[in-house]
Amino acid sequence: MPAKMIPDIVIGRMPIYLRALTRKYQSGRTVTSSQELGERLGISAAQIRKDLSQFGEFGKQGTGYNIEFLIQKIQEILKVNRIWDVALIGAGYIGHAVANYGGFHKRGFQITKIFDTDPSKIGKEYNGIKVQDFSTMKTEIQKAGIQIAMLTVPAEAAQEVADQLVEAGVKAILNYAPVSLKVEKGVRVQHIDPAVHLQNMTYYLD
Amino acid sequence: MPAKMIPDIVIGRMPIYLRALTRKYQSGRTVTSSQELGERLGISAAQIRKDLSQFGEFGKQGTGYNIEFLIQKIQEILKVNRIWDVALIGAGYIGHAVANYGGFHKRGFQITKIFDTDPSKIGKEYNGIKVQDFSTMKTEIQKAGIQIAMLTVPAEAAQEVADQLVEAGVKAILNYAPVSLKVEKGVRVQHIDPAVHLQNMTYYLD
Repeated sequence: MPAKMIPDIVIGRMPIYLRALTRKYQSGRTVTSSQELGERLGISAAQIRKDLSQFGEFGKQGTGYNIEFLIQKIQEILKVNRIWDVALIGAGYIGHAVANYGGFHKRGFQITKIFDTDPSKIGKEYNGIKVQDFSTMKTEIQKAGIQIAMLTVPAEAAQEVADQLVEAGVKAILNYAPVSLKVEKGVRVQHIDPAVHLQNMTYYLD
Repeated sequence: MPAKMIPDIVIGRMPIYLRALTRKYQSGRTVTSSQELGERLGISAAQIRKDLSQFGEFGKQGTGYNIEFLIQKIQEILKVNRIWDVALIGAGYIGHAVANYGGFHKRGFQITKIFDTDPSKIGKEYNGIKVQDFSTMKTEIQKAGIQIAMLTVPAEAAQEVADQLVEAGVKAILNYAPVSLKVEKGVRVQHIDPAVHLQNMTYYLD
């Protein structure tokens, strides 16, 4: 981990770079430039070079970036050159869809535990993972040392579940509920917020 | 709409500012500063002032921003001081959850049409909206003049559906499928990508 403090907003752009680079690589490309990446992402080439230079020297002036090398480096920076275990809390419609989402494993994550309060769901298997009783969540997560959780519970339950997750040692929560969560310092929350994405596009509509 | 070209990345931060301001307003606050907003969002105060100044003068040096006024201004900028009709394509688990999501209306959106190919879903009501036969999608969207669609179809169907949406006049697509979509210039695509959010947090984990 780099000793200097890198702004959250820079870290936040790295997964976007990683996704764009991975797509280029999958389409058979081997080299790219900050100009090309920038045009694709709507970010200036200078910003991309500045962001990447926070972590080291990944390209040479005039020759561009080796895509495979840069992918590896960003994976190391983001610590997704390994597979993280993830707990999924809530086995409703969104939870079911998330459990079956095909995009996690090759990007560093696997859901290993699912919890719900609904007796009609407990014991069922979602994508090979048995839904466990929510009452066992804290001890199960603690025992397994899981640090990442995805929260797909109803809005009114989200804060209480988040509190329990933090008590169990979870340090990163991806929240699908349309509410803001309060967590202690040192715990990260990200929010799946479709309205933000829609508002991002209406600016360009007439 | 401002005549000058504002970078996509600046536009992309406006919904984040709007969400943070709305939460502050709902918690009873009336005034805030770029410093306070920045600390909350992990963005520098200078960046926030620079972003907002692209659209005009919204605060006075030393007195901060009037939250209600700034919310109104950002809503105007993003054109969400109105309600946009949205078509939902795909009535599976994610589609069902999206149809019932409580966060759209007060942020400028309402789902007015839902389409699916599955005969067992067609005719059913999701949150008061009847699921229509996918074969009628193009004409129905055209007739209604809908410009925004959310895509919750399987990955392998997403590109074909996107092509039809664009032919029907849709200009903004929110894609839940874990695939990249190719669309013509002038059409915007945003991607709900939980792996990006998770990768954003692993940097901070040990």
